[in-house]
This record gives sequence, C-alpha cells and structure tokens, in this order.
Amino acid sequence: MNTRLMAELTHLLGDRFTTSDYERQQHGQDESALPPMLPEAVCFPLTTAEVAEIVRRCAQHHTPIIPFGAGSSLEGHVFAPHGGLTVDLSRMANILRVSADDLDCTVQAGVTRQQLDQTLRPQGLFFPVDPGADATLGGMASTRASGTTAVRYGTMADNVLALTVVLPSGEVIQTGTRARKSAAGYDLTRLFVGSEGTLGIITEVTLKLQGLPEAMSAAVVGFAEFDAAVKAVTEIRQAGIPVARVEFLDEVMVAAINQFANLKLTERPTLFFEFHGSTATVHECAELAGEITHAWGGSDFQWAVDAGERSALWKARHNAYFAGLAFRPGSRSLTTDVCVPISRLADCIIETKHDLRDSFLTAPIVGHVGDGNFHLMFLVDPTKPAELAEAERLNKRLVQRALALGGTITGEHGVGLGKMKFMADEHGQGALAVMRAIKQAIDPQNLMNPGKMLPPL
Amino acid sequence: MNTRLMAELTHLLGDRFTTSDYERQQHGQDESALPPMLPEAVCFPLTTAEVAEIVRRCAQHHTPIIPFGAGSSLEGHVFAPHGGLTVDLSRMANILRVSADDLDCTVQAGVTRQQLDQTLRPQGLFFPVDPGADATLGGMASTRASGTTAVRYGTMADNVLALTVVLPSGEVIQTGTRARKSAAGYDLTRLFVGSEGTLGIITEVTLKLQGLPEAMSAAVVGFAEFDAAVKAVTEIRQAGIPVARVEFLDEVMVAAINQFANLKLTERPTLFFEFHGSTATVHECAELAGEITHAWGGSDFQWAVDAGERSALWKARHNAYFAGLAFRPGSRSLTTDVCVPISRLADCIIETKHDLRDSFLTAPIVGHVGDGNFHLMFLVDPTKPAELAEAERLNKRLVQRALALGGTITGEHGVGLGKMKFMADEHGQGALAVMRAIKQAIDPQNLMNPGKMLPPL
Repeated sequence: MNTRLMAELTHLLGDRFTTSDYERQQHGQDESALPPMLPEAVCFPLTTAEVAEIVRRCAQHHTPIIPFGAGSSLEGHVFAPHGGLTVDLSRMANILRVSADDLDCTVQAGVTRQQLDQTLRPQGLFFPVDPGADATLGGMASTRASGTTAVRYGTMADNVLALTVVLPSGEVIQTGTRARKSAAGYDLTRLFVGSEGTLGIITEVTLKLQGLPEAMSAAVVGFAEFDAAVKAVTEIRQAGIPVARVEFLDEVMVAAINQFANLKLTERPTLFFEFHGSTATVHECAELAGEITHAWGGSDFQWAVDAGERSALWKARHNAYFAGLAFRPGSRSLTTDVCVPISRLADCIIETKHDLRDSFLTAPIVGHVGDGNFHLMFLVDPTKPAELAEAERLNKRLVQRALALGGTITGEHGVGLGKMKFMADEHGQGALAVMRAIKQAIDPQNLMNPGKMLPPL
Repeated sequence: MNTRLMAELTHLLGDRFTTSDYERQQHGQDESALPPMLPEAVCFPLTTAEVAEIVRRCAQHHTPIIPFGAGSSLEGHVFAPHGGLTVDLSRMANILRVSADDLDCTVQAGVTRQQLDQTLRPQGLFFPVDPGADATLGGMASTRASGTTAVRYGTMADNVLALTVVLPSGEVIQTGTRARKSAAGYDLTRLFVGSEGTLGIITEVTLKLQGLPEAMSAAVVGFAEFDAAVKAVTEIRQAGIPVARVEFLDEVMVAAINQFANLKLTERPTLFFEFHGSTATVHECAELAGEITHAWGGSDFQWAVDAGERSALWKARHNAYFAGLAFRPGSRSLTTDVCVPISRLADCIIETKHDLRDSFLTAPIVGHVGDGNFHLMFLVDPTKPAELAEAERLNKRLVQRALALGGTITGEHGVGLGKMKFMADEHGQGALAVMRAIKQAIDPQNLMNPGKMLPPL
C-alpha cells in the first residue's frame, strides 16, 4: 500500500483509517487454527458512499481489499495473504427498516444477528439464520451461512431478498427487490450471497423475517449409539415432520458443553429438538418425533418447556464451539463442515468415527443432522505441527468420503483459504473455470479478497 | 446456418435434425401474443453427450442455439430473432433417479411436470412447483418458474439442488450436489436457474421433493370487493398461517373459468385456498384462515373435501390461461406478471383496476396473491394492432407502478423478448452491466439464445 493512498484514505476517513499494529493484528486473524496474515491497514467506513470511495481509491492504486464483519470465520476468509486494506463494516450497524406487514427488513452489513434479534423480538418477529458466532449479517450473506434452523427456514441463500453491493470499480448496485420472488434476469443476489467478498462489498442486506411462532418447545433425547440417533432424524425428516431445529451432539461434545455451560446432560449421543408453530402443531410434531426416537431406542423426551430453560439449552448448543475449545485448554480447532444426502449421513459418520478411533486426536462432533451437515472439531495444540497435520489428513479423508456420497465440502462455513484446495474435487475443472470467468469479468484487477475461494491455476 | 453444419448435424442425428417448415413453425412460436420468429432448423437430441456435440458444432460455425422445452413460454423465450438452430429437449424425458429417503430426484430436462407427478405420487411424493402449462423441468429451471404453491414451497430457485449444463463451448459441467445446502463457491446452480438459455443448455435437473401430506383440503371464499380479498390474504400471511396455496381470481376470471370448466362459482372476487399437513394442522389452518376471511366480509368457506372435487377446482385454476383465451374467442393474451411486497398489493391492484376501467380492453385477473404476484390477461385480437398497443401501454404503466412499490417486473414468467425493455428500469445500468459481463464471460460468441433477456447496449 503506497503512501499516496494512505494519505488519501486518512484525508477521507481521519482516524477511521489506521495502520496500527493492534488493529492489523485484530483483523488478520479469525476463529480458525490457521496462522494469522495481517493487512497493511484497516478502515472503518460509516456509509455505502464511503465504502464506494475507499474501493475507488484502492482500485486506482491496485491495492487489495478485504471486507471484514465480525471476524468469526473458521476458514481464514478475512486474512490478508496479499496485504492490502481491510474494510471493517462493523460501524455500519444501523437497522434501516423493519416491515412487520411484509415480514422483511433492511440492515447495514455490520448489524449482528443478536443485535437484529433484540430489535425484532419486541415486534413479534425473528430472523432465523443463526450461526454459532454473533456474526454480522453482511458476513453471513457473504459466506452463505446457516445454522441450527436451516432444516426449517433455509440458509442465507433462502433468506436474502436484496443487496446493496459496492463493485470492484467503486460503482454501487442494487440486486433484487423487496418482491418475494422474481424471474427478472440473472440472480445476482444469489451470486453475491456466498461470494465471500471476492466480487464486491455487501453494504446493505434486505432479509425475509418470520413471525414469532405462537408456541415453541424444546426437547433432549439421549441414545446408546449415535447411528440410532442419526437414523431417527432421517426417519423424522422423511416423515415430513416440520422440526424447527434438530441438532446432534456426540458423547464427547455433550461432555464439553456440560463442562462449559455447567449442565448435567447424560454423556451419550444426544439430539436437541425444537418445534415451532401453533400450540396444537407443536404438540403434534413433538409427539410424532417422540414416537420415532423411541422406536430407535432413544430415551424419553426431556422437555425444556419454559422460555428460560429452552434458551439455556440452545445457548449451550450455540456455544458448542467455545465449549469444544475449552475442553482442551489452549487448543485451536480445525473444524470440518461436510454435508451429505441424509440417507448417507449415518454411513459417513460411522466411517469418520472409525478414523477417529485410530487417531491420537480428540474431535467432538456436533451436527445440523436434519440437513446432513455435521462438524468435527479437531482440537489441536497450535505449537505442535504434527497435530495440525493429522487433523488435515483426517479432514481430507472426510471430504473425499462426503464427495463420494454425493455431498459437499462445506455446508455453511464457506471456502476461504482453508477449503480452497478441495474446490476442484467438488466442482471439477469445468465448473471452476466458469467461476474463474465470473471473477475475472467482475473483478478484472483481482483486488477483492484476493487469494481466497478460487484456487490459483 | 451453412450447409456444412447442416450436413454435420444430419450425419450426427439422422432424421432428428430437420429444416422442415412444420417443425420450424412449431418451434418459432409460443403461448404469447408476440409474432412468431422461426429458427432455421430444429434438432431433437437424446443425451447430454449429443447436446454437447451439437453445441460444439454450432460454436465452430458461429450459429445461434435456442433451447426448447414445451414451448409454453409467455415471453418469446424460444423465438429465433437471429435464426439458428432450436435444440428441442423434449425427447430427453427420462426420470433418472428418485430417492424417497432423501426426498430428491434427478430428471432429464425434457421431463414434464405432469409426467414427473405421475411417477412420484404412487411413491407418496410430489414436486410442488406448478406453472399453468405442462412445462418441462428444464424449461421451468431455465425461467425460474413458480406457480400456485410458491407461497409454501418456493420457486424453482428454491427447489433445484443441482444441474447438468452444456456450456457454450460444448463442455459439460455439473453445478451443485445432492447435499441440501452448500457454501462451496459461487452458486452456479442459482445462476443457471433463471438464465433463460443464455448461458448454456440445462440437460439434467436434480430437484427437492416433498412427501405427500397426510391431509389436504381446499376451500373457495367469495368477496363483494376485491380489496377485501387481498387484505384478508395479507393478514393470513402476516399471521404466519402456512397456507399451501392461495389464489385470487377477479369476477371476470371467475366468469371465464365457469364457462371453460363448466363450474357454477358465483362471479365475484374469489380466493381459492389449499392447506397441507397433518389432519389436525390442516383443520387448524383452515379454521384460522376462515376467521380472517370472515372478518373481511368473505363468504363462508365452500369446502372441496374429496380428492376429485379438489382436483377439479385446481384443474380449473391451472387452466385459467386457456379459460381466459376462450373467454374472447380468437384472442391472444398479453400477460402481465408483476410481483410487489404484499403490503402494497391491494394498492397496486386498485390502481390497475382504475386503468382497466378507463380502457376498452378486457383483462381477467388471476394472482398468486400470497407472494404478491398477479397476472392481467389482456385479451387482444391479433389482427388489431391498436389492441396490442393499448395492452402494451397499460402494461408499461403497471410495470412502473410495481417498481415504484418495491416490486419486480416479472415474478415467474421471465424476461425473454417481452420484458427486455423493462430490465434497466428494474436493475439499473450498473447491475445490468454486471449481467452483461457474466454473459460475455460465459458466452463470448453470444450464441446461446441471443437477443433475449439482456437489452442491447
């Protein structure tokens, strides 16, 4: 980054442009086990117009740009392998509009999901997509995030109606409208959702909302064997029972969250359920799901009926990542993220468990099993390269297994730096060439989050 | 199209390549009021490999390619403004795989929705997306089609998991996998869905399926005023009642389908409802919806409880387009397709009705009002240019109105030739330039369905 650009950005942003070691350090790392890569500078725009001006200046000076939300990536999305400027959107945190009538809202990219939730709940509304971290909506859109409710409400791909995007030229475009559906040309909204900052910077997001259901209930069911748990979920899905959430935790993860959240769950393969709807629907769904889990040898439903108890349970689930890390103090996690057709899920986990049995590493498992998506947290000591190498070896085997079963390398965490090496295995060279052609067409200078997602030729 | 290419294609395909006037005529028209534009030749491939070979030959000879499914477009998608070869996929009509366990299937592009339905129902499954015509799944994917169930099950954008696509180079790629969600790179599946054959030819489609609900019920409610009907639907949506279908027909359209389908519905603004779920859920939803419609002055629910009666009702609704045409014998329809935020729907229809009252044209209205999407069928005498001009004038006013209300020019019919002139109004020049850059990157020779969707610069 040359001194002329630095002077221009200082003039534009004042102390919202910085080259301080502290901010560079804060913005060159994430929640993954990957070693940090620092940007040369960091800036904090307040408006779309400022972002556009920053991008124009960087484009003139051929300087890489890395969009940054909450920094909760697990795949090095916000790292700066080619240096350049990090554009931190966290101060663009205004909720611009909420329409209860249309069940939609528009937020600036730096609004976090918990912030949005606090605004929506008093209005009887909620936004369902809930990654573990308190991520920003811009970051969630950029990585096509999902979470525990995707089985019922879908992912960010299903819940973003429209975007404001600053293109690599600095031009500002709108993609999509507030209409619930459209057949008007290429689906740019869904192209930018999941593009990981490689095509432009998302500055505003229009989201679909849900009305808070009349009733919610949560239940915990334990199993002697994990494959019975997985098969019970498969059957529940096939029966079309509209569960709002169904999460699997293996006995190791249950131990970790017991310790972290001071719970007393029996340490065995366990399913967490949540049901949403009218009182009658919730009751009926729970009853049907209970019958199926019982037939697969599950324990009786332990109900968390009141809101406080339900919230404690799901908070513990949302903190599973941090519970996992605390389970081995000082560790970092290499976190896997495959997603397979649900009929192949039990096989996929069984084979993976065999791998784990033969390895010296510990890896709690947690999964959005209703989608066929699960995570191993390989807890590695960052000072021991042999541990990271072993985790990489097992992850590679898992990825190949998932692809062979008709699955994907990443259900919800995205590609970033971490999974770039598997992109050709999933898509083939032909589809990857189409992605590269799109990247080249929209970002010919390769300035937007360079060195990520698309492996070099 | 030069004689060398004709010879090559005849050698490759035998009598499945033809320049006959009859086939050219059949393939140069659709269901719209637009005047036909014939291709120079038509071919009927049987496999993806054949499609790839056809595309390679056409690319070598710089010959335009027009993919063709059932020809049920309302926007001239299959017309040949630049001549060239129509690739009719209707003989690629194999259902390749159905998985009841995973609720998905893979079909060749020429399979029609009714053909698929006949295969799925005996297995307790159905595919929800239901445009009026018996369209092909390839055509439905290409135009991002939807229908009466989008309010519950979404559009083709929500129901396609993966595609096989022949690129303009003749290379074959797979987009997506059978995993229910993925964050692995640009969402090529959703880029090709809705790309209207301008980026390649879809030859296989992997679809999400639904289990047949335990119970279904349908009901008809009449209203004195149409805005009460629209407002009742708005309130039902806001209350989160999971209706499977809710269709609005104005008094003119009710008269048309009475006449066409020999029904005896009272000729007034009318809603058709359908509810899916368990017996208890269906009962509860219907009761809640009934209370709301009653509060808005709707008649009592007329139930169509048994499957035969329900099916007759929905068949009449699906045939609304043909009922409309028959209502004015010899007419063609210019069909509008705007979609607006649901809170603005009543206003949008009211102003449109004012326009209609002041016009000499008749236009029955039918709408997927749960999505904010509705259609006017301007019934025009194709021999009277003044009628088409009047329909165009009113459509233009409607499109501008919908855009001003935050809506889209097309909810489900696509752009084709008919709506190309409105693309800049909806997207702005910046977003349109991104679409053009993508087109140029993937189809640099501009051979795939040229002259459609993206207006010339």
